[in-house]
This record gives sequence, structure tokens and C-alpha cells, in this order.
Amino acid sequence: IELENVDFIRESLDGVNVADIAAILDELTMQESVYVLRLLEKQLAADILIELDETTLSKVLREFENTEIAVWIELMDSDDGADILNLLSEKDREEVISEFQDRIKSEQILELLRYEEDTAGGIMAKEFIRANKNWNVIQTINEIRRQAENVEKIYSIYVVNNKQQLLGRVSLKKIILAASETRIEDIYDEDVVSVPVHLDQEEVATVMRKYDLESVPVVNAKNKLVGRITVDDILDVVQEEADEDIQAMSGISDTVDEYDSVIKLTRARLPWLLIGIVGGLLGAGFIGFFEEGLSKVTALAFFIPLITATGGNVGIQSSTLVVQSLANKSAFDNSLSQRFIKGLLVALLNGLVLSVFVFGMIVLLYGNEVKFALVVSIALFSVVLLASFMGTFTPLVLDKFGINPALASGPFITTANDLLGLAVYFLVAMSLLSI
Amino acid sequence: IELENVDFIRESLDGVNVADIAAILDELTMQESVYVLRLLEKQLAADILIELDETTLSKVLREFENTEIAVWIELMDSDDGADILNLLSEKDREEVISEFQDRIKSEQILELLRYEEDTAGGIMAKEFIRANKNWNVIQTINEIRRQAENVEKIYSIYVVNNKQQLLGRVSLKKIILAASETRIEDIYDEDVVSVPVHLDQEEVATVMRKYDLESVPVVNAKNKLVGRITVDDILDVVQEEADEDIQAMSGISDTVDEYDSVIKLTRARLPWLLIGIVGGLLGAGFIGFFEEGLSKVTALAFFIPLITATGGNVGIQSSTLVVQSLANKSAFDNSLSQRFIKGLLVALLNGLVLSVFVFGMIVLLYGNEVKFALVVSIALFSVVLLASFMGTFTPLVLDKFGINPALASGPFITTANDLLGLAVYFLVAMSLLSI
Repeated sequence: IELENVDFIRESLDGVNVADIAAILDELTMQESVYVLRLLEKQLAADILIELDETTLSKVLREFENTEIAVWIELMDSDDGADILNLLSEKDREEVISEFQDRIKSEQILELLRYEEDTAGGIMAKEFIRANKNWNVIQTINEIRRQAENVEKIYSIYVVNNKQQLLGRVSLKKIILAASETRIEDIYDEDVVSVPVHLDQEEVATVMRKYDLESVPVVNAKNKLVGRITVDDILDVVQEEADEDIQAMSGISDTVDEYDSVIKLTRARLPWLLIGIVGGLLGAGFIGFFEEGLSKVTALAFFIPLITATGGNVGIQSSTLVVQSLANKSAFDNSLSQRFIKGLLVALLNGLVLSVFVFGMIVLLYGNEVKFALVVSIALFSVVLLASFMGTFTPLVLDKFGINPALASGPFITTANDLLGLAVYFLVAMSLLSI
Repeated sequence: IELENVDFIRESLDGVNVADIAAILDELTMQESVYVLRLLEKQLAADILIELDETTLSKVLREFENTEIAVWIELMDSDDGADILNLLSEKDREEVISEFQDRIKSEQILELLRYEEDTAGGIMAKEFIRANKNWNVIQTINEIRRQAENVEKIYSIYVVNNKQQLLGRVSLKKIILAASETRIEDIYDEDVVSVPVHLDQEEVATVMRKYDLESVPVVNAKNKLVGRITVDDILDVVQEEADEDIQAMSGISDTVDEYDSVIKLTRARLPWLLIGIVGGLLGAGFIGFFEEGLSKVTALAFFIPLITATGGNVGIQSSTLVVQSLANKSAFDNSLSQRFIKGLLVALLNGLVLSVFVFGMIVLLYGNEVKFALVVSIALFSVVLLASFMGTFTPLVLDKFGINPALASGPFITTANDLLGLAVYFLVAMSLLSI
């Protein structure tokens, strides 16, 4: 690249998969990437842009004129084009749009920009093949030939009536296997699963997983076919949602990754840490309330970490199970009372094992302090029960109010259970040791 | 169903999607499900079985004769058939296999059973369409017609040489658009991504996401085409792996869900809880070591939860970020020293904000205890630094040793950081307060 050997670059990239070229560009300096992209054939450059990671992409785009960007976007599928426009500033976006030559493509992209990013409308593409129910196989194949220019991958062909309303689908295979005079009406399959344009992308993923779909048609309120979503886009959605949940669980409030700036990382991490600190200060106030008892029996302080840690661990386990079953909603979920009884049984069993173990260990290690050992193990038992109760119901409540329940299994539960654990511990100690 | 109205059941299920029928069966009693499955056409029943959830499926299978199961399995894709055989006891499995009528299918299934369940071989299917490079378009379409009977969805058609080695692929679209005398050799695309049969399923998912593939051919060591994996199977893999990681993070040692038995749930949860308890007991011993100092300055006990909780939260955040970047490995990862420096900066910034806040709050709430406030905030600052260091490096080390790094961001980090936090806290207190 340094030698600016144009032919060499073109040749050596020939036949290399675009995803691999994109990975190479991610590694190059900005000037080098820009240089290579300008060199390449426009269609190839457009394909590579789609594969770049978002941070690199935004930087690269800033280096190009809006006219260049407009040309590339017109060579992309409408959904990828819309994604790229979403990365631009409002001013640039309007300039790029005004540069579009292809009226149809630009209308498609503008339509996509109107939908919320994380709904079916936001991830669908306008490129799909539709057949009118009145066509025969020959007409359809001709239409496929015509439409196929714009459509990268053909999955199903959607069958519509004259009002463009979705009636069903017919597979390419069936069309090939049918006699050429057969009318689409006679071979199409009415059993088609579609999603409404405003459905959340996570639910689109659930639908596609449930029915094992490779693509799903998107319809508007009047059942008019407006787009399709392919499974490779959904694969990214599933991964993103999983990453988001894991980050929510670990108390990171924004979706960040290791490559983000120090400031952005700090901002994403501080909020929940501060909430944890406030919880800690409340806990300190709480223990302070029992200062007198504590100064009489200093050993009470020894087991504070044991109680709070176990409360936290039990709470996280319980809430994780609930969060996962909420994510994989099935029509026939456990009822609230079933959940309660099962959670109670598991907690009783766990609590019993743990407190007997702790009782034994304290007696063993600290000699004949049976009463004290009893205090710790009774407190532990109660904390396990309470934490498991909290862990089960907090995500259910959050979910009811439309908040991501994964939040519950993170710092929220830990902080709440710390306080709860301390309260139980000192109350049990106070009443049993009469201090 | 109670009325045993055969025609009514058949009719009302006609045209209903198999995934929906499966969901209904999940809800019925065992007798009812068995009754309905026996009523239905064999192919439909086989399709429904595939969609049942694993627990229901195992139960249902026990109600049927091995001969009945064999008939169904022969009607399934080879990968689904192999999955069902894997659910049976060894004895039943052999009986079912001996009942197979279709020699080819049974060989395919037996081959699949030989591969590890979570490798490319374990999730691939034997149903795919291959074309010899020497065929022309007409021959290929005829072959597709012949082979298509067994292949539910056609994505790409794989092109092989006479030794069945993978050369490339050609899309159905290209075949339709080509003239009928064109030889496959002249239109196929050499740029095909394949995966080796022993590749871990998680890496298969990464490959498919990277290259946006709807299906990927699987080859053996000699580059012979042995199967294909479709993206809908990978969707399940991505979801499973994400669920597994989340469970590992929350200290659940087996993959369980809310519907499992109380005993199974308890067994999955107890191990990490016990490790937490042992950590707590060690912590107790540790604090006991400073008993004298603690009895002089009881207020030290107040801030134990604050220190341990913050250590835990910081550790979990750091390790989550590392775990996620390990999961989304790219060729150009941050180097160890880059990670270290960035982690250090973020930790310094977070630590500074948190300790200044705590210092201020303690002075505000507890009056003129400046020296004591200094002890707590210095300890807190050190804990944030150490916990972030531990959180960054533990998953890297675990990953090096081939252990799932998600384990690190769970109870392991919490327990280790509790102990570390206590140590730092009391050492700082001891030296600054000279107790």
C-alpha cells in the first residue's frame, strides 16, 4: 500500500471475501483505508463498507464526500443503506439523500428511515420477490429474473393479491418443480408466518426461532407486504440482545465494548457503582444502629461478608433463571404460584444445606460457641429464603413495568440483598443474643 | 379430545403450523399428546416431534414403541433424527436403529451420531444438494428435482469434483438465470466458506455471522463435502451459548431452566453457593485476625459491606467486558498491555470519583472524622484498582487454560474480591489508624 501499487492491491484483493477485506481495513490507518476504498470498484467498496465495524465505519465516512457516499448507498440493499444513513449527522444525511439518482431506491430507504431502529421495520429490507397470485410459473420466473437483479438472496417468494396484501408464499423449489403453465394461485402455501412492522426486533427473533424461518415477510396494519427480514440479520439481533442483557446484569448501563474510549467506559460503569456505594453507606448507617451490640460481640462483624455475599449470590441465581424464562416466553409459562412454590422449595433446600454447613464449621472452628453459631446459621437461612424471593419477583415486577428484567439480576439485586441481609442478620442476633 | 372425535381433531389441526401444534401438545397431558400423535399422519407427527421441547419429547418417546419411533425418525432430516436418538437410552437407540428400513438414511444418521454434539459434525444435516462440476444446467435441475425430495430448504447448491471434494457453490438463482446448456464449471463461485467437521459450534456461529451465510458446507480433513449447517440451527446455538454464559456468570453450574425439578435446580445452584460460603468463612477468619483493632474502632465494621460490594461490582463489570470481547474475537484484539493501560485508566477515574464521594459523605454524616473517612476512601480506591485488575485478568487466564471465561465474571470474582477487599481495608486501617 505504501508503494501505491494500484494493480497489485486490486489483484491481491480479487476473490477475497468482503468480510475479510473489511477485517483488513479495520486494521489499516484511516488514510490507507480511504485510499483502498477509492481504488476499488464501487460495488465492491459498498459491500465492504457494510461489513466494517461501526466505529471504523463512522470514521471512514467522514473522509468521503457526500456524493461518493450516495453512490455507494444506492448500490447497497435498502436496509444496509438506511443503517449507514443513520450513522451520519442530520445535515450530511439530507445532503446524501438529495444526491440519490435512483428514485425507487431512495424512496425505499426514506421509508425505512421512518421506522424505529429496533423494530421489524427498522431491520427489514425492501428487496424481496413478490408474485401476484394470478401469474403462472413462466410469468413468475420472468419476474424473478427481472427482480432478482436487486435481490441478493432468494428465500421464499411472497404471494400477494392485487392490493399487495400478503396471501402466502411459494418456494423457488416448488416453482422449479412445477409445470410452466401452473398458476401461482394453485401452488402457493397459505401457511405463512408474517410479522407486523412495529414488532420489537427481539420478538421477531423469537418468532423466527420458533418457526425455524429463514426469512419472514413484514406487513403493515392493512396486511400489505412492506418488506422482509432475513435470518442473518436476526442472528446479529440475538447476539446483540444477549450482550445487552449480560451488560445489564453486570451493571454496565450503556452498550459499550473494550474499544470504546476511557470516558465512555467510565460513564457507562459509574452509575451502578454509585448506587452500590449509596447502598453501602445505607448499610453502614444500618450497622451503626447496632453499634452497641456490635461492641459487645465483635465476632458479629466477622460474618457480615458471609451473609451479604450469600444473599447476593442466591439473588442473582434466582433472578437469572426468571430472566431467562421471561426471554424465552412460551404460551404456557409457570403461573405465579407455581413459581413461588418451586422457588420456595429450592431455597429451603439450599438454605438448609448451607446453614447446617456453616453451623458445623463455626462450632468446629470457634469452639463451643453454639448459640453464636445458631445466630449466624439462622440468619443465613432467612437470608437465603428472602434473597431467593426477591430474586424471583424483582424481574417479574420490572418486566410488568416494561423495564429490562436483566437489570434486576445485576447490581440492583446485590445492593438490595446486602441491605436485606444485614437487617435480618442483626435482628436475629439482637433477639437471640439479647443485646 | 376427550370425546375422541378423530375427524374433528384432524380437521382443526389442518393448516396449523407444526410449531403451534407442538406448543399445544406441550400443554396437554401425556395420554392426550400420545393419542393425538398416533392419530396424525406420520410425516406431520414427525415434524411436530422435532418442535417439542426436550423434556416433553423424552417423556413422549417413552410412551411409544421403538418401531413407531423408527418410522418417524426416517421421515425427519438426518440431524433431527440424530438428536432424537441421542435422547433415547442406549438400548432403545440400538433397537430403533435396527428397525430402520431406509439404508441410506440410517447410514447418514449413524454417521452423525459419531460426531461430538457441539461440533459442526454434531449439528450438520446430511440433506443438501450437490452438483458435479461437469454437469450442465439441465442435468443439475433434474438432479435438484430428484434430490429435492429429501431436502426441505434449498439455499446454495454445492459444487464438487468426482472425488466429492468441495470446489465452490452456485445459487439456485444463478442456475435459473443461466442458459440450459451452460456447464456448472463455468458459473460456479469458487469463493465458498466451509467449516471443518470438528469445529466447535460456537465458532461455526462466528463464521456464519461474519460472512452473513444462510448455510455453510461442512468438510472433512480431505475437503470432502460431508454435510451442511443451516442458519436456523445456528440461531439456536447462539441463544444456547448466550444462556450458558449468563448462567455461568450467575453461578449456576449446570444448564437448567425453571421447569427442571427442585433437586436438579438445587444441585446446579449449591456448588457456587458453597464456594461463596467458604469464602465468607475465610473472610470471617480474616476479620477475626483484626479483632483487637475492630473492638477499638467498631465503626470499621460499618463499612465492610461498602468495601466488599464495590469490589464485587467493579470486578464483575471488568470481567464482563473482557468476556464479551473474548467471545467476539476479532483478528486484531487489544494487546495485553493496551488492555492493562486502558483498564487502569478507567479504574483510576472510577476509583477517584467513588472515593471522593465516600470521603465527602462520611465527613458529612459522621462529623469531623476526617482520618477515619480517609481510611475508608483510600481503601475503597485501592479496592477499585485491584478488583478491576483481577476482573480483567482472571477471564484471560481462564480462557488460556480452556475454561469458560464467563465463570470468572460470576461468583468466582465476587468471592475473590470480597477477600481481597477485606484485606486491603483492614491493612489500610491498621497502618493509618495505628491499631
